[in-house]
Amino acid sequence: MTSNTEIAPDQLAYSLDREYVFHSWSAQASLTPRVFAGGEGTIIWDHEGHRLLDFSSQLVNTNIGHQHPRVVAAIKEQADRLTTVNPAHAHLARGRAAQRIIELAGDGYEKVFFTNGGADAVENAIRMARLHTGRDKVLSAYRSYHGNTGAAIAATGDWRRVSNEYAHGHVHFFGPFLYRSEFWAETPEQESERALQHLEHVIRAEGPGSIAALIMETIPGSSGILPPPPGYLAGLRALCDAHGIMLIFDEVMAGFGRTGDWFAHHNSQLNPTGVRPDLITFAKGVNSGYVPLGGVIIPPAIARTFDERVFPGGLTYSGHPLATAAAVATLDVMAEEGIVENAARIGRDVLGPALHELAAVHPIIGEVRGVGVFWALELVADPVTREPLSAARMAALKGLLLARGMLPFIAENRIHVVPPCTVSDAEVREGIALYDSALSDLMAG
Amino acid sequence: MTSNTEIAPDQLAYSLDREYVFHSWSAQASLTPRVFAGGEGTIIWDHEGHRLLDFSSQLVNTNIGHQHPRVVAAIKEQADRLTTVNPAHAHLARGRAAQRIIELAGDGYEKVFFTNGGADAVENAIRMARLHTGRDKVLSAYRSYHGNTGAAIAATGDWRRVSNEYAHGHVHFFGPFLYRSEFWAETPEQESERALQHLEHVIRAEGPGSIAALIMETIPGSSGILPPPPGYLAGLRALCDAHGIMLIFDEVMAGFGRTGDWFAHHNSQLNPTGVRPDLITFAKGVNSGYVPLGGVIIPPAIARTFDERVFPGGLTYSGHPLATAAAVATLDVMAEEGIVENAARIGRDVLGPALHELAAVHPIIGEVRGVGVFWALELVADPVTREPLSAARMAALKGLLLARGMLPFIAENRIHVVPPCTVSDAEVREGIALYDSALSDLMAG
Repeated sequence: MTSNTEIAPDQLAYSLDREYVFHSWSAQASLTPRVFAGGEGTIIWDHEGHRLLDFSSQLVNTNIGHQHPRVVAAIKEQADRLTTVNPAHAHLARGRAAQRIIELAGDGYEKVFFTNGGADAVENAIRMARLHTGRDKVLSAYRSYHGNTGAAIAATGDWRRVSNEYAHGHVHFFGPFLYRSEFWAETPEQESERALQHLEHVIRAEGPGSIAALIMETIPGSSGILPPPPGYLAGLRALCDAHGIMLIFDEVMAGFGRTGDWFAHHNSQLNPTGVRPDLITFAKGVNSGYVPLGGVIIPPAIARTFDERVFPGGLTYSGHPLATAAAVATLDVMAEEGIVENAARIGRDVLGPALHELAAVHPIIGEVRGVGVFWALELVADPVTREPLSAARMAALKGLLLARGMLPFIAENRIHVVPPCTVSDAEVREGIALYDSALSDLMAG
Repeated sequence: MTSNTEIAPDQLAYSLDREYVFHSWSAQASLTPRVFAGGEGTIIWDHEGHRLLDFSSQLVNTNIGHQHPRVVAAIKEQADRLTTVNPAHAHLARGRAAQRIIELAGDGYEKVFFTNGGADAVENAIRMARLHTGRDKVLSAYRSYHGNTGAAIAATGDWRRVSNEYAHGHVHFFGPFLYRSEFWAETPEQESERALQHLEHVIRAEGPGSIAALIMETIPGSSGILPPPPGYLAGLRALCDAHGIMLIFDEVMAGFGRTGDWFAHHNSQLNPTGVRPDLITFAKGVNSGYVPLGGVIIPPAIARTFDERVFPGGLTYSGHPLATAAAVATLDVMAEEGIVENAARIGRDVLGPALHELAAVHPIIGEVRGVGVFWALELVADPVTREPLSAARMAALKGLLLARGMLPFIAENRIHVVPPCTVSDAEVREGIALYDSALSDLMAG
C-alpha cells in the first residue's frame, strides 16, 4: 500500500493513481499517466512546477483556460452558501444559468434541463425526442461521439460503440468528410449533396415514420473536427422537417466559444441560412468543466409535451449549485472579456493561417480543417494515397511535443489543435513553433 | 423575461426557475418548487432565513449534513489549485479518494473507476460485468432504482423504467418484501427462502450461462427502504457463484454511512455471513453530493480482465478534482468525527425506537422498516388490507409537515425518514414530534 508521507507529491499522485485508479478507454497494465497539480490560462503544471503549454484544453473543455480567477471565486462563494440541493427545489444559481443559456441560444428555445455531463444530456435529448414524437429510432453518424452511457454510446459512431451495443433503435449513416469521402465526391458542394442523398435514402429505407431523432455534432469533434460542407446543415433541417424528425445538434464539444461563436450552429459560414435544431445538448465549455455540468436546451413545442405529462428522467445532481454557479460566472466572463470573439479572431487571423503555412512546409499534413480554436491536422504517411500516419509514428510525435513543453491532443492520425478560447497570439506562435519543430524531428528521425 | 434586479432573491430564484428550468420526473406546468439558499447540518433555509429541519437529506445524499466546514474548505482549496483535468492524467485528490474508498471497502477490492453520479456508475459496472463474463443479460429487481441513463434505467424496476425501455438484455425479478409479499410468505425466513427460489427459477428459465450480472441495491431505497430478510444476501451470493454471475451491490443510496456502516453490506445484522459482491456502485454519500461524483469499486479478477484489453468506457469529468477532493475530506471527516457510528447509534437507540413508538399510537403507520438513518414509514388506509394511503392524503401530509418546519421525504404512500448521519438526538426528537403532530392532524382532518 502506498504511504502518503515521505515521498514527493508528484510521485505520490502517480503511485496512488497506478495502485487505485481504474482509467477510461484504456488497457490498465501499461499506463503511465502524467501528474498535474495546477494551471493558469493555457499553462498547466505538476507539483514540481514543470510547465506545459496546454493545446488540448484537457478534453477540449477548458474554453476559458485554466483557473480563471472569477470562476474560481464564484465556485468558492457558492461553496460557502450551499453546495447541494435536490433538483426538485429551486435555487438562484441554477435559474440564472438557465436564463443565460436560453438568452445565448437565441430565439426559439425556452427551457434548460441540466445533467451531469454530455452523455446524460444526449440520453435525455433522445428521451425527449422519442416521447415527443412517439417514435423509436435515432439516426446518427458513424463519425461521431455522443458519450458513454446506454443510449449515448449506442448513438456514437466510432469504435467505442462496438462493444457497447445494448440499446436498440439506433441507426448510423455516413456524414460528409470530403478528404475521405464515402461518396466519391470531388468538391465540397458534391460531398454535401451526395451525403444528403445518402441520408435521405437511409431515412426512406428505415421508414421515416419510425424515426424520432437525428442527432449530429454540429462539427463532429472526436472523429476529426469535420466542419460540414456548404448546404449540409440546411439539408439536414429540410429532411427532418419533411419527415417530422427532431433534429438534435450535439454541441457538447463545439459549443460555448470553441468555434468563435456561442454555439457552432450560429457560425454564419457553416450555417449561412441560420438553421436551428429542435434540441441542443451541451456540457464542457458551459463552465469549462470546472464542475461537472451538461444539459439540454428545449424549444417551446417540446416543453409543451411535458406540461401535463411527466417527463421520465432525472439525476440527483441535476442543476447542481456549484456547477451552475460556475456556469453563470463562466458565461459572464466570456461575454465581458470578449473570449468568444477572441476565439473567432485567433482562428481567422492567427491560428488558421499559421496551420495552413505549417501544412505548406510539412507534406505529412494531409489536410488542415477547422474554425475558431477547433482545428485538426490530418497526418498522412503518403499525401497521394492519404494513408493515415501509423500509431507508432503518432506516439513518437506525441513524445516529441511533450518533450518540447506542449500538452497536445492526439487522436488516431491527427493532431487536434484545441487551445482555450483565451489563447493569446504569442501562445499560438509558440504552439505553432513547437508543432513545426516536432514535425521536422519526426520526419528526420 | 424575468428581470434580475429589484425583486427579492427568493422570488427571483422562483421566477427564473419557473421560466427557464425544466424539472426531473415531473409534469412541468403546475410545479411550485421551494427555494433554498443555504444550510447547516440538518437545517436548510431560503434567502429570507426561513428554516426547515431537513429529514430528506435532499435526495438522501447529505450524509454529513449541509455545509460541513471542513469539506467546504477542501473544495475551496482544490478550486484554488486546479478545478479540472483530463481523466487520462493523474492528480493527487483522485488517487487519495480512490485509496480511501478501497481501504473502506475492505479486502477483496483493488481499484475505483470514477463517474459523475450513480447512473453512470451502474452503466459502467454493467459494462464491466458483461465484458468480464462475455454474457449479455442483467438481472435486477422490480422494486429498484438504478439511475436515469440507458442501461441504468432499463435495470430499474419501478415505473420510471416503463417509458424508457430502449436497452436490451434486462430481466426483472421480485425481491423480498414481507409486508407486501409476492410469495404468500408469513415470516421473514419464509420470505427469504421463497424469494430465493423465485430468483433461482428465473435464472434457470433465462439460462444461467446467458446472465452477466445480478444488480441489487443492498437495501432497496427509492422503492421503500427494504432491508433484506435473513439469508437473502447469502442466497444471492450462492446463486451467483453457482452460475458464474457477477453480483453487483448498488450502494449509491445505502453506502457511506446511511445504514450506520461504511457500506450497507458491512452491516452484521443484514449480512451476518459477510457476503461480498463482485462490484460495488456508489455516489451520493461518498462526498454528500457536494460535488457530482459516483463510481465503481472493482475486485482484482475484474481489474485483470482489463489489464491488456481496453475498457470501453469513460467520461470527461471522471475523477474530477473538486469532486474527489470533496470525497477525501468527507471520508476523513466521517472517520474522525465518528459520523458513521453516530448513524448506527441513532438508528439503534433513538430513531428506530421512536419510530416504533410512533407506529404504536398511529395505526395509519402499517410498517416501520430500516436501520441507521435509513427508515421508511409505510402509511396505509387500512391496517388490515394494507391498502396504501392515497396520493391526496400523502400530499396533505407533506403540506402539514412543511407547515410545521420539516422538509420531509415523501415517496408514494411512504415517509422516508432519512436525516443526515450527523443528526443529533434532539433533532430526532424534534422530527418525531413533527411527524406525530402532522399525523394526528391528518387523522383529525
